[in-house]
Amino acid sequence: MNGAQSLVRTLVGCGVDVCFMNPGTSEMHFVATLDAVPEMKSVLTLFEGVATGAADGYGRMAGTPAATLLHLGPGLANGLANLHNARRARTPLINIVGDHATYHKKFDALLESDIEGVARNVSPTFVRWGSAPETVGADAADAFGAAVSWGAGGVVAAPRPPPRPQPLDVPRVSAVADVLRSGEPAALLLGNGALGVAGLMAASRVATTVGAKLLCETFPARVARGAGIPDIERLAYLGEMAMAQLEGVRHLVLVDAKAPVSFFAYPERPSWLVPDGCEVHVLAAPGDDAVSALESLAEEVGARPDAARLAVGARPELPTGELTVRAVATAVGAMLPEGAIVSDEGNTSGLFSSPMLAGCPPHDWLFLTGGAIGQGLPVAVGAATACPDRPVISLQADGSSLYTLQSWWTMARHDLDVTTVLFNNHSYAILNMELQRVGTEGAGSRAREMLDLSHPDIDFASLARGMGLTAWRSKTADEFSEHLAAAMATPGPTLVEAILPQPRRNRRD
Amino acid sequence: MNGAQSLVRTLVGCGVDVCFMNPGTSEMHFVATLDAVPEMKSVLTLFEGVATGAADGYGRMAGTPAATLLHLGPGLANGLANLHNARRARTPLINIVGDHATYHKKFDALLESDIEGVARNVSPTFVRWGSAPETVGADAADAFGAAVSWGAGGVVAAPRPPPRPQPLDVPRVSAVADVLRSGEPAALLLGNGALGVAGLMAASRVATTVGAKLLCETFPARVARGAGIPDIERLAYLGEMAMAQLEGVRHLVLVDAKAPVSFFAYPERPSWLVPDGCEVHVLAAPGDDAVSALESLAEEVGARPDAARLAVGARPELPTGELTVRAVATAVGAMLPEGAIVSDEGNTSGLFSSPMLAGCPPHDWLFLTGGAIGQGLPVAVGAATACPDRPVISLQADGSSLYTLQSWWTMARHDLDVTTVLFNNHSYAILNMELQRVGTEGAGSRAREMLDLSHPDIDFASLARGMGLTAWRSKTADEFSEHLAAAMATPGPTLVEAILPQPRRNRRD
Repeated sequence: MNGAQSLVRTLVGCGVDVCFMNPGTSEMHFVATLDAVPEMKSVLTLFEGVATGAADGYGRMAGTPAATLLHLGPGLANGLANLHNARRARTPLINIVGDHATYHKKFDALLESDIEGVARNVSPTFVRWGSAPETVGADAADAFGAAVSWGAGGVVAAPRPPPRPQPLDVPRVSAVADVLRSGEPAALLLGNGALGVAGLMAASRVATTVGAKLLCETFPARVARGAGIPDIERLAYLGEMAMAQLEGVRHLVLVDAKAPVSFFAYPERPSWLVPDGCEVHVLAAPGDDAVSALESLAEEVGARPDAARLAVGARPELPTGELTVRAVATAVGAMLPEGAIVSDEGNTSGLFSSPMLAGCPPHDWLFLTGGAIGQGLPVAVGAATACPDRPVISLQADGSSLYTLQSWWTMARHDLDVTTVLFNNHSYAILNMELQRVGTEGAGSRAREMLDLSHPDIDFASLARGMGLTAWRSKTADEFSEHLAAAMATPGPTLVEAILPQPRRNRRD
Repeated sequence: MNGAQSLVRTLVGCGVDVCFMNPGTSEMHFVATLDAVPEMKSVLTLFEGVATGAADGYGRMAGTPAATLLHLGPGLANGLANLHNARRARTPLINIVGDHATYHKKFDALLESDIEGVARNVSPTFVRWGSAPETVGADAADAFGAAVSWGAGGVVAAPRPPPRPQPLDVPRVSAVADVLRSGEPAALLLGNGALGVAGLMAASRVATTVGAKLLCETFPARVARGAGIPDIERLAYLGEMAMAQLEGVRHLVLVDAKAPVSFFAYPERPSWLVPDGCEVHVLAAPGDDAVSALESLAEEVGARPDAARLAVGARPELPTGELTVRAVATAVGAMLPEGAIVSDEGNTSGLFSSPMLAGCPPHDWLFLTGGAIGQGLPVAVGAATACPDRPVISLQADGSSLYTLQSWWTMARHDLDVTTVLFNNHSYAILNMELQRVGTEGAGSRAREMLDLSHPDIDFASLARGMGLTAWRSKTADEFSEHLAAAMATPGPTLVEAILPQPRRNRRD
């Protein structure tokens, strides 16, 4: 058995049986192994940012890691932005980077570069070179020396147990319970590990019982939503709005969440968003079992089993007339299928989507976790791969989609049931706002041109069709509803492009 | 004056007056400055890999650096693969990365990452943080702290002189002349600095006078070609072919070139391609004035002024019948306009292009310098920006184009005169070859599917039209010739997609 085979067999033995790949010469032994190890499902992407983002989406939905296969330093670099997002989402995934043969590295061939330096950016604690066939299986790890691929003597390694969550810290739960029972204004801020149904139920029981506010981080990895599940308010993207949400709070309880800071710094505005005089308490740190902590807390504060405040089932009416971001959200809310997975990179255009879908049948919502745009479409690829029986809706801003539009082709090849709703407002709309907020002076037409996507206008339906999708362009709310219904009724990947008015500031007239 | 203004004014003062950008919030002050400093031309790209590749193409043609403006660590990461290529091309360019405000960094906001770690990958010797308004102008440098953007007190810095080339090393020239006059078989291997008209003329005079072989590196940054210019043979991509080219050579003279090594390592094949017993001599190292060294060498060996062997003007006949890679090259050769710039990322499909165009009117040829694919289209953007009066032909492989297809939109916005010739052979054809060469065993249909771009087939004309280009699809040689003529007659960017047979090994039937 050669090194590549022992690597692939070890991965499969560990339950890592999906690999999103964009291979080159140094990964050909891994590729050749696919026929010998049919348990490994391989998904080809046309750009590494799709592979890494898909592994993120897969991990968020499956709860087990996918692998990626990337070509040398430049391939890893191309995938790095979505690995940054995955790091923020704390999604488990394994990147395999084919390097030059060990004895070839000293020649500084054209593709030679510092892979480790780049890898440490997203994986500070675990980068390993596989440099011998007999150990690469045991590594099954972030880094993989192509040198070993053709060497004989590969050894399949047994799976190692994943790290266990910390045991419940009972005194800590009691201390938080005491704080919450004090009657002083309090808020619970929930992060990734607390946002499944069980965590939300327990948190809502606590909040209603003690009269605390219930919030979640702005961009969590995955949130359970819909009728019968507690609807949780997200902390706002804009610092001043987040501060308004937290105003008067004296105790902020973090549940697998970070204390809130603003996304960017702005002149004369604070970066640290915890109100003055508010005490921060940690119920569960990252890596702790947040759900157990919340359930234990609910017991401590004496919450009744039925104390959770559940979202009531309700759908908006189909919109009519002008096509606006609100009309898009309304139509999606009117039609979202039960069990849907929503990949949300709507940015400014997605503003109404989350509230409008609160009463839809139960679904999962995936956010842009690290702020590096180009995540929504790849995450949809990964989510659909992990959950082939669930419909995926990708709410996608125009500018961000163009970072990883190659995702559409992978959706088409694997007939993934993803409906992309493309908000085409012909601009980087969020930057119009930021241009004001950062306190610039003198920005005129030349500056605004850098935020404008309208000359030439981009035909996203044409782009999607070029990659094998069925696609529609909608200019009115009625058209959009009709097209969205058709898209949802069509198996496999589809796209509905919503032609929206350009934000006023962006217009050049 | 704030920090951003002093930065932009300093760049303009240094002659850096083009910036390829993909800005976000942390770069808004730079953007706002564009109206106050109209001397800075700004070119918006939809993906950072386009911005960095365009800066590379610009620098290769203009000989002066362009700037890029990139958004935090993920933006730099997205541009890194083409910065790798630019590093190999030794193209001067300045990357400006907007970071968080200095006082904001400690909060580890979502977009926080290790920018410096990534930057050192391509710029090991010069990464500088601009952390104060009064020094950022003086830095005008690789790294730029957004914190200073809104601080007052920016100071415009005077240009600093660029490093001078080393003075001519006369004894070294004489030593090489002695070697070449010895009568033993010799070859000159030319790299980047020696491949303009003057360098090629001097090198050819030397070669014909002493009977030496004349070769250039496989993937140089820029080569002058065409009728009346010495046509130089490139060292082959495949090591065994390169070794055949060098067979029997006893003296290899490097002129701003590296001693040849194979692109990848292969079992049972050497990485080091210099023949046994061949002595390597350095006439000019990187940074030396290679042209002066060659001209001095020509004098030393007593070469006559007219001793250079010049390519004879000749064009192939227009092709007819089946559309093949040879037919595409023939049609391009029949029509290439005088003064054209060819950006070549044709990979396997480009095999015939270079020889077929040797007798065309004088033109420049730009290669994939670092092996990181996705370079051809961005380099075409940059070359067309640097040379608005020269037509640009982008010879582009299908798989590679999909890394940076967003380039087409920037071509459309700026009405750049680029004709993309898209070789659609429905596969990563080069990997079919590499799959065999690296000695894999057992590769079957599942492995081959990872090299196959045919299900679904990609409609590149639809992709290009979606970004504002006029585009054609050609299925016969006659159609291709007709479409290429129309494309060349159309001002602004166009695309002709050549539908080629899929390599036999890739077919699933």
